[in-house]
Amino acid sequence: MSRVYNFSAGPAVLPEDVLREAAKEMLDYQGSGMSVMEMSHRSSEFEGIIQTAEADLRELLQIPDNYKVVFLQGGASTQFAMIPLNFMKNKVADYIVTGQWAKKACEEAAIYGKANVIASSADETFSYIPDLNDLAISEDADYVYICENNTIYGTKFKALPDTKGKPLISDVSSCFLSEPMDVSKYGMIFGGAQKNIGPSGVSIAIIREDLLENEPLEIAPTMLKYNTHVKAESLYNTPPCYAIYICGLVFKWLKKQGGLAEMKKINEEKASLLYQFLDESKLFKGTVREADRSLMNVPFVTGSDELDAKFVKESKAAGLMNLKGHRSVGGMRASIYNAMPREGVLALIDFMKKFEEENR
Amino acid sequence: MSRVYNFSAGPAVLPEDVLREAAKEMLDYQGSGMSVMEMSHRSSEFEGIIQTAEADLRELLQIPDNYKVVFLQGGASTQFAMIPLNFMKNKVADYIVTGQWAKKACEEAAIYGKANVIASSADETFSYIPDLNDLAISEDADYVYICENNTIYGTKFKALPDTKGKPLISDVSSCFLSEPMDVSKYGMIFGGAQKNIGPSGVSIAIIREDLLENEPLEIAPTMLKYNTHVKAESLYNTPPCYAIYICGLVFKWLKKQGGLAEMKKINEEKASLLYQFLDESKLFKGTVREADRSLMNVPFVTGSDELDAKFVKESKAAGLMNLKGHRSVGGMRASIYNAMPREGVLALIDFMKKFEEENR
Repeated sequence: MSRVYNFSAGPAVLPEDVLREAAKEMLDYQGSGMSVMEMSHRSSEFEGIIQTAEADLRELLQIPDNYKVVFLQGGASTQFAMIPLNFMKNKVADYIVTGQWAKKACEEAAIYGKANVIASSADETFSYIPDLNDLAISEDADYVYICENNTIYGTKFKALPDTKGKPLISDVSSCFLSEPMDVSKYGMIFGGAQKNIGPSGVSIAIIREDLLENEPLEIAPTMLKYNTHVKAESLYNTPPCYAIYICGLVFKWLKKQGGLAEMKKINEEKASLLYQFLDESKLFKGTVREADRSLMNVPFVTGSDELDAKFVKESKAAGLMNLKGHRSVGGMRASIYNAMPREGVLALIDFMKKFEEENR
Repeated sequence: MSRVYNFSAGPAVLPEDVLREAAKEMLDYQGSGMSVMEMSHRSSEFEGIIQTAEADLRELLQIPDNYKVVFLQGGASTQFAMIPLNFMKNKVADYIVTGQWAKKACEEAAIYGKANVIASSADETFSYIPDLNDLAISEDADYVYICENNTIYGTKFKALPDTKGKPLISDVSSCFLSEPMDVSKYGMIFGGAQKNIGPSGVSIAIIREDLLENEPLEIAPTMLKYNTHVKAESLYNTPPCYAIYICGLVFKWLKKQGGLAEMKKINEEKASLLYQFLDESKLFKGTVREADRSLMNVPFVTGSDELDAKFVKESKAAGLMNLKGHRSVGGMRASIYNAMPREGVLALIDFMKKFEEENR
């Protein structure tokens, strides 16, 4: 067995320790005589798994007691509908559009009410975060929406917008648990697991209790009401049990690494190694405004489509996988999530240096 | 490692060969250097996995070419909303209510239109399938809905209703791939995977093409439109990749067993061993009308709540797990899906015999 360095934007690399433990327990979870995949979601074993996962997540993110945590299906794309269906009581919401996912969320909200774009960076292929000073927040906005880390474009909100008292809802799919967050500043935080937390097939939402007092729209499907899942503690119907179990193993791994303050340090170091190389390189350059650079997703180009293609091909042959950029940006993208070891980033930089020497 | 006999109604027992293969490939899927959980859903490896899974399912069920197959999230409970959202063009549908799940599906449809109960077995705790002769199908019904195997109550439709030309939509969650089906008789077949096909977190829908020509209701969320997933071949957003991979391994295992005709033989033999014992027992009795008995879920009682509780407790100690009946029926229930070996059924019967001798 030989493992590669996997720079995929998602589904993405997982900690090897987590995969080893999952493989070991596949046929017999802790003496139960069953796989986690075979367990009733109402069994005491699975209750232990989901409750421990929630407790560990609460500890890692220091989630205040007045926030509920739910494990959901359908990915962030389903949340794009759930958010307006649950929270658009005035039928008005404000969206900051910093990429394809925020745009899709905004378009989905427009099915149910007025979805205002109050800021956007579409004019420069979403390569920056717009000015957040004195935003034109709608007086009757039910919430203000952001996508906090933009996987495709490699940008990150370094500060939160002043929402003038409106609840802030943030898609954190690609920066979830990459650093500490002040949860109390948000109305709701959500994300798909398949980038930084676990496998695809489970999303997590962290919702301030007062938002749950809203009556959802009348036409909201039962499964798309947050309260359906909050009241049943994520067990209204059969949840994606195995995906939740893997997330739980990742949470334990994060605690073992020292928690999110330590992860932030490690992630900053990994990212700065790569950005520093990009800034000094004569061949490669980053595509994002320096102040808005993501710690997780690092897009870069050579300036030549032909060289970009050559780079992707040769890096793959060297065991550096999934470095091709998203079709809307082109070039390359290295996703360096929590589970990407420092050695992987160093191997990438070494390869880039060699490639630069050979192709200048 | 010691494995138990797991009679859970779902999530449920999986073939041991499948779990062994999954464990073996956990850190390195076929030389890719990655886990299936770490793979981009746009990678050629994962495309191979999902396309092979669909092809094997088509072969097993002999699905005609004019039916689409999609892998979805959210469980059957999400389908309960998707069905009316996509197909209720006249805002009328007919439901045959044979248990809690059909009832929930009917209630969900009532959010969007007129959901008529055209037959029900609620009067006798759903212990039988209602008379299907000359049903009062609504003239403008968009579809007729059934739950073909009722997990909680242990009943199964042995014949399909005459829908007088209306499309038949069937929830087959708990009998999926347990025997051959004539797919051409249905407008749509769907089910959650976590009973007979794989882990929780993925559902499968098989939809006749002409139904997909309907315009969904205007307020349908994008993720709840079947065409969103049909057009993107289940890759509109990140699907539950690992769950689909496990389903694919189960499909291969089913083909190796000889396909669904062979599974039917095996399942009939397992079920008849158990039903024959119940019919002859002086202590235990089945709760379902003989003609309507399920091959998959076998509920039974002693007639004494105290003895039932003793049975559940002692069976657990003997390595026969999850035999407690659903709270709405009480007593016991043995779910004997495809992956439950004949030896498991024999071990259960042996234990029941011994218990009967000790407790008469």
